[in-house]
Amino acid sequence: MRIDGLQYANWSEKIFRQLREGGVDAIHVTIAYHETFRETVLNFEKWNRWFEQYSDLIMKGQWASDIDAACQTGRTAVFFGFQNPSPIEDDIGLVEILHSLGARFMQLTYNNQSLLATGCYEAEDSGLTRMGKQVVKEMNRVGLVVDMSHSGDRSTIEAADHSQRPITITHANPHDWQPALRNKRDEVIRAVTQNGGMFGFSLYPHHLRGKSACTLTDFCEMIARTADKFGTAHLGIGSDLCQDQPDSVVEWMRVGRWTKDIDYGEGSQAAPGFPPMPDWFRDNRDFGNIEQGLRDVGMSADEVAGIMGGNWYRFFAENFGPMGEKHG
Amino acid sequence: MRIDGLQYANWSEKIFRQLREGGVDAIHVTIAYHETFRETVLNFEKWNRWFEQYSDLIMKGQWASDIDAACQTGRTAVFFGFQNPSPIEDDIGLVEILHSLGARFMQLTYNNQSLLATGCYEAEDSGLTRMGKQVVKEMNRVGLVVDMSHSGDRSTIEAADHSQRPITITHANPHDWQPALRNKRDEVIRAVTQNGGMFGFSLYPHHLRGKSACTLTDFCEMIARTADKFGTAHLGIGSDLCQDQPDSVVEWMRVGRWTKDIDYGEGSQAAPGFPPMPDWFRDNRDFGNIEQGLRDVGMSADEVAGIMGGNWYRFFAENFGPMGEKHG
Repeated sequence: MRIDGLQYANWSEKIFRQLREGGVDAIHVTIAYHETFRETVLNFEKWNRWFEQYSDLIMKGQWASDIDAACQTGRTAVFFGFQNPSPIEDDIGLVEILHSLGARFMQLTYNNQSLLATGCYEAEDSGLTRMGKQVVKEMNRVGLVVDMSHSGDRSTIEAADHSQRPITITHANPHDWQPALRNKRDEVIRAVTQNGGMFGFSLYPHHLRGKSACTLTDFCEMIARTADKFGTAHLGIGSDLCQDQPDSVVEWMRVGRWTKDIDYGEGSQAAPGFPPMPDWFRDNRDFGNIEQGLRDVGMSADEVAGIMGGNWYRFFAENFGPMGEKHG
Repeated sequence: MRIDGLQYANWSEKIFRQLREGGVDAIHVTIAYHETFRETVLNFEKWNRWFEQYSDLIMKGQWASDIDAACQTGRTAVFFGFQNPSPIEDDIGLVEILHSLGARFMQLTYNNQSLLATGCYEAEDSGLTRMGKQVVKEMNRVGLVVDMSHSGDRSTIEAADHSQRPITITHANPHDWQPALRNKRDEVIRAVTQNGGMFGFSLYPHHLRGKSACTLTDFCEMIARTADKFGTAHLGIGSDLCQDQPDSVVEWMRVGRWTKDIDYGEGSQAAPGFPPMPDWFRDNRDFGNIEQGLRDVGMSADEVAGIMGGNWYRFFAENFGPMGEKHG
């Protein structure tokens, strides 16, 4: 079973077919960066149309059992998430509404301060806000998973501790391997995983040691070392694959409507777009390379199966339903 | 089993307790008259809070199986509907979005011309519009039931014939019993019921012969005669109970934002509010009177059970899920 904990591609029939070619049974896709509630609804609608149009390739994912259904019918189950809490605006009631529509992950921040917590690009991290604590509790209640991939360290640790259910960093790597601003220090990874949370390894070149030139072996050895430190059961892949996106979308991700200036995120004025992917992970067809790479650095078949999808599957099964209920 | 095919009360703990006292297992409640999509979402949110707050009395209803769950736990399952297509605005994609949120009925019109069809108060009924035909097809696909209670005759007959699944008139009475504008002529009732649709009898005094003074026997004899004409299996109750609503809400129902004048609907300037309910149906506690009344006019136990809830139950089971699937 192969599950990817985060993608944001410029979706097309080509990519849906590559998902099948790569044997990817489920993906978590971002459908909001800076969108309001109403704009996010339009993104749900867009996916509903794709589910009709490409019903032989993809299906809507709401519960872990949908992954079983996808496996049985040779399709990829698509689960939804937001990289910012903008879809709930200032209304805690929208948490349940969006969960009803199929949202399963929500980042409390995307780089900047939000109503809920502090993003990793702010100078000062003041932790979970008053509303943040209420919203985490509500997310726990309905089964919307807290994702802190783009949050500051203090906010992340506070969210992990405040949350009554496990939280995630769906897409990042350890900071001591590649000291990118978005990569996570050990104490952050520990706070998330020690409460049953999940950490997804990113293939975004800025998060890789050597960036686009990173080798498969280096990447897989880094995973093996992280498994030694924090336990294999809490690790998965969150590729952050942004295939085929034009630079205008990269710009939307980075600046939304919050500034009139340009912010280059982990890029730069000289290289504003996405760097090229490493040659061993061009797109969804290459998950087999990672699987082989993990075996080659000495991980057991069970460990590899867990990291490639089994661990996400278990996490989905335990965390997408109302608190206290298990939704297969 | 007791199911009411339409209510629009000023909801409160008192009314939720009366539902239990009356042994009402499920109700279809109106949550939009003229609301936009965004305003309708706020009404879903309001109900979500009530489901939390009064979890011992009510629960959200999405499928017929939720009525079984409600019966087993001594609660009332609440199903949602709109008396106007205003929540989908001009966007067919919102049909599936609103179904995901729990909408199960939608009127194509409320008295006036809509984007989809003609309301019963217009001088000219031009039938289903171009968008109307597309939206009925989409409602059929996802399992959102067409309700023509407030539509013109031609629009209703066209909707019944165009729809691939049964449609409803959730709340009205036969026009030949009480010739109110909103009561339905035989050819309209026939068009709906002959395609497997449901007709719900209304307790709204303007729709009763003798209005507030209508007797239980007269009401039940009218039901028995309608059953003789169209078959008992297609009949249920749709009380149109608007308990505890202030006149300001009656005015919202009638004029929304479409006019600056006052429209009195079936009321008048002298009597703008709701007329008093007949003394044998004050509120949800009195469903037992109707049940007894139907027996007293000679209907069999099976027929009475069907009209009091069994027929709605079967209809819910067959029509709330995606076309071709049965959702218990």
